[in-house]
Amino acid sequence: MKNFISVNDVTDINALVEKALAYKANPLVDKTIGENKRIGLLFLNPSLRTRLSTQVAAKNLGLEGIVFNVDKEGWALEFEEGAIMSGTTVEHVKDAAPILGQYFDILCIRAFPSLKNKEEDYSEQVMNAFIKFAGVPIVSLESATLHPLQSLTDIVTIKEQMQKTRPAGGKPKIVLTWAPHIKPLPQCVANSFAQWVNAWGEADFVITHPEDYELDEKYTKGATITHDQDAALKEADFVYVKNWSTYTDYGKIYSNDPDWMLTEEKMQLTNNAKVMHCLPVRRNVELSDEILDGPDSLVTTEAGNRVWAAQAVLSEILKAQ
Amino acid sequence: MKNFISVNDVTDINALVEKALAYKANPLVDKTIGENKRIGLLFLNPSLRTRLSTQVAAKNLGLEGIVFNVDKEGWALEFEEGAIMSGTTVEHVKDAAPILGQYFDILCIRAFPSLKNKEEDYSEQVMNAFIKFAGVPIVSLESATLHPLQSLTDIVTIKEQMQKTRPAGGKPKIVLTWAPHIKPLPQCVANSFAQWVNAWGEADFVITHPEDYELDEKYTKGATITHDQDAALKEADFVYVKNWSTYTDYGKIYSNDPDWMLTEEKMQLTNNAKVMHCLPVRRNVELSDEILDGPDSLVTTEAGNRVWAAQAVLSEILKAQ
Amino acid sequence: MKNFISVNDVTDINALVEKALAYKANPLVDKTIGENKRIGLLFLNPSLRTRLSTQVAAKNLGLEGIVFNVDKEGWALEFEEGAIMSGTTVEHVKDAAPILGQYFDILCIRAFPSLKNKEEDYSEQVMNAFIKFAGVPIVSLESATLHPLQSLTDIVTIKEQMQKTRPAGGKPKIVLTWAPHIKPLPQCVANSFAQWVNAWGEADFVITHPEDYELDEKYTKGATITHDQDAALKEADFVYVKNWSTYTDYGKIYSNDPDWMLTEEKMQLTNNAKVMHCLPVRRNVELSDEILDGPDSLVTTEAGNRVWAAQAVLSEILKAQ
Repeated sequence: MKNFISVNDVTDINALVEKALAYKANPLVDKTIGENKRIGLLFLNPSLRTRLSTQVAAKNLGLEGIVFNVDKEGWALEFEEGAIMSGTTVEHVKDAAPILGQYFDILCIRAFPSLKNKEEDYSEQVMNAFIKFAGVPIVSLESATLHPLQSLTDIVTIKEQMQKTRPAGGKPKIVLTWAPHIKPLPQCVANSFAQWVNAWGEADFVITHPEDYELDEKYTKGATITHDQDAALKEADFVYVKNWSTYTDYGKIYSNDPDWMLTEEKMQLTNNAKVMHCLPVRRNVELSDEILDGPDSLVTTEAGNRVWAAQAVLSEILKAQ
Repeated sequence: MKNFISVNDVTDINALVEKALAYKANPLVDKTIGENKRIGLLFLNPSLRTRLSTQVAAKNLGLEGIVFNVDKEGWALEFEEGAIMSGTTVEHVKDAAPILGQYFDILCIRAFPSLKNKEEDYSEQVMNAFIKFAGVPIVSLESATLHPLQSLTDIVTIKEQMQKTRPAGGKPKIVLTWAPHIKPLPQCVANSFAQWVNAWGEADFVITHPEDYELDEKYTKGATITHDQDAALKEADFVYVKNWSTYTDYGKIYSNDPDWMLTEEKMQLTNNAKVMHCLPVRRNVELSDEILDGPDSLVTTEAGNRVWAAQAVLSEILKAQ
Repeated sequence: MKNFISVNDVTDINALVEKALAYKANPLVDKTIGENKRIGLLFLNPSLRTRLSTQVAAKNLGLEGIVFNVDKEGWALEFEEGAIMSGTTVEHVKDAAPILGQYFDILCIRAFPSLKNKEEDYSEQVMNAFIKFAGVPIVSLESATLHPLQSLTDIVTIKEQMQKTRPAGGKPKIVLTWAPHIKPLPQCVANSFAQWVNAWGEADFVITHPEDYELDEKYTKGATITHDQDAALKEADFVYVKNWSTYTDYGKIYSNDPDWMLTEEKMQLTNNAKVMHCLPVRRNVELSDEILDGPDSLVTTEAGNRVWAAQAVLSEILKAQ
């Protein structure tokens, strides 16, 4: 694996998932493969799970991880080609990226979308600039439009759960449901989850959301899409809850309908489904206390699995170097 | 030792003090007991000595320490049970704590009081939420009402000093004196020092402060309390200087009387006392230059001892795991 | 070497440069000389290259590096002797420095000038206070008036380039040219480069800048100084580009003349010169895209060499301890 930006960087999803689960069973089995190598963890935005789980994963492989909060500790970066830099940006990514590529063996980057300019966000200019100029492997810690480490973790969590409850196999029904939120959020987690579940291909996949909340078809193609949440939830084995802002008329909140919040009552429609969320979650807005604190929630397990997903990815990149 | 939140978590103060002094003599004697373990150092507020000394202590035990400035690098946490999270907080401690407990073997947390709501502050909701939800040992790096690593350090410093100057033993007279300050400060350091000296029981302990600056009796009980600073200082062996805001009518400044600042003149009343302060100190407001720069100040020694106190505590927690 | 504050701390520039180049060829040759030692990297201002390259250098020597953003994570420091601290500063350097000296074996400090008060900036009060009070070696990560790690890197880069292109030796012509910028910048990099090239003594050294941009003669003495940029560039082997604000009438912008920006056209005057800049650089304000992206730019090599310069300095300090 050269970079890890989307599912397209993965040749065998199931093998990568199994690798993650193997690390969960034996975290230190590869504890020297990163020796004398360094990863830089660059944050243009806040992070808790992603940052800490990637630091832990790196350490488990013997890699030294150095965190750098670009927005707070460094200089404001310019991304526009040919810019006359007489404004607020202090350093061009064309200058910063190759230098970071000299200091680190792998660069991990988090950069949220503006939600102001769809074309710019969906061009993934930050991630692509680092890929173009850094000269070392780039790992997305969530980009403008995708969050592949989260999605890999999600598949890991689903497979782990199925091995426990359905050892004989069989296709699970997975539902991605929109949830209300008080502010416009990126489409990243939803895009990425859809992209991975579709690429994985081992589930019946349904996406449900209010009208006008369609995601980019590039990611959803292959899934059944409906505005009827109740119909979607019927016989579901996994319910993935997530808010996102509008994609077509970009970055808006068209609906904040509290009826879309998942409740125990709605869960009655499912096949004793497990509930997933990438976190952070706005309790009693996106998801009710009763579900988060109940036995069907996988959110803590899911967040814990972030370590093993990151460790599998870093390990694949190290082996390819 | 399971958690380290107050003196109540310590079964033998003298043994813990001796352990700290043993680490001072031989910092690396236990350099592998923390191998392949990790502590998370979570800060909801600024820190210099506490953060750095705990990092150094962890490293001396072979523990990997990861610092996370929750307030700056992560998400604003919600602590209220059942909250409908449609405001400014992004993640509930019920969700964050168990995840951090999966990433780390020990969690160390700093969380100052608001000084607005006495009941809330004295309920120690932040520290107690982490104890309740994290599932791993919790170490206080200063909480809303107590600062146990500081107080342990203070006893270590007093005992170390007595071993030098009074090898035959005997009860020292220890005076905790209020000092002026320009803004309302927590009662933590004073509460905690009183609690520890009282629990230790090997000193004549006097607390002196202006009227209306009474501390919570839960901590001061057992000490002599007086508003007459001069009387208190008489024959003192150790003078511990600290400002705090009012406790009864909570979080106020009733007096800023500069006469309460300790000076060389007042020190004449003592038994060649040593002067202590937890730092940071407002020079020439809380304590005069002449004392801080003179031979009786223990403040640098005290801050240096923070490493050994933290190391003793982490070591005890590791051994109990 | 005891401290590293300016070229005056170096007894043999060429030997130190060779040491840096030897580390570039073999980064891990001294990987245990810093074992069980710690350096503190204290930032009162932002940093990218300096921070990361010094962390990498420390790690290459087996040193543990701990970053502390004093301005963001700690307390506002007071530097005035005898201050009555009833204002915004919370801790005096007289108290903080000796404690940091107990926690670390080497302290590295970055502290920019105010550009408001020339006398105060040029007294280097921050750096000198740490030297006076910390009790351990101090390394400048850029001070109010100098940036010695950058200048050492610059000489390393020049010598490395000459070994490639002119193995028979001979004095290169080095030109330091002022460049336009949109805001007042410190004189540090220019002062320091002038001081090092003059002390090195193995070049024809020309400084060119608009009228009224004279630097402190203490640093420039020995160089040819001219306001005619074209004349200066003639037959240059290395062109070092840098903006600085006025020194005499302190901290001002007198000229922002875009004609001073280096272009390919001006480069025709040189002897196929290589172009250097410390970065960050404002593209198309200080330096044109065509030069930065062209074959004559050394800026990425230069930034990469920061690691080896820092490693040589830390190594010399460790050996003297």
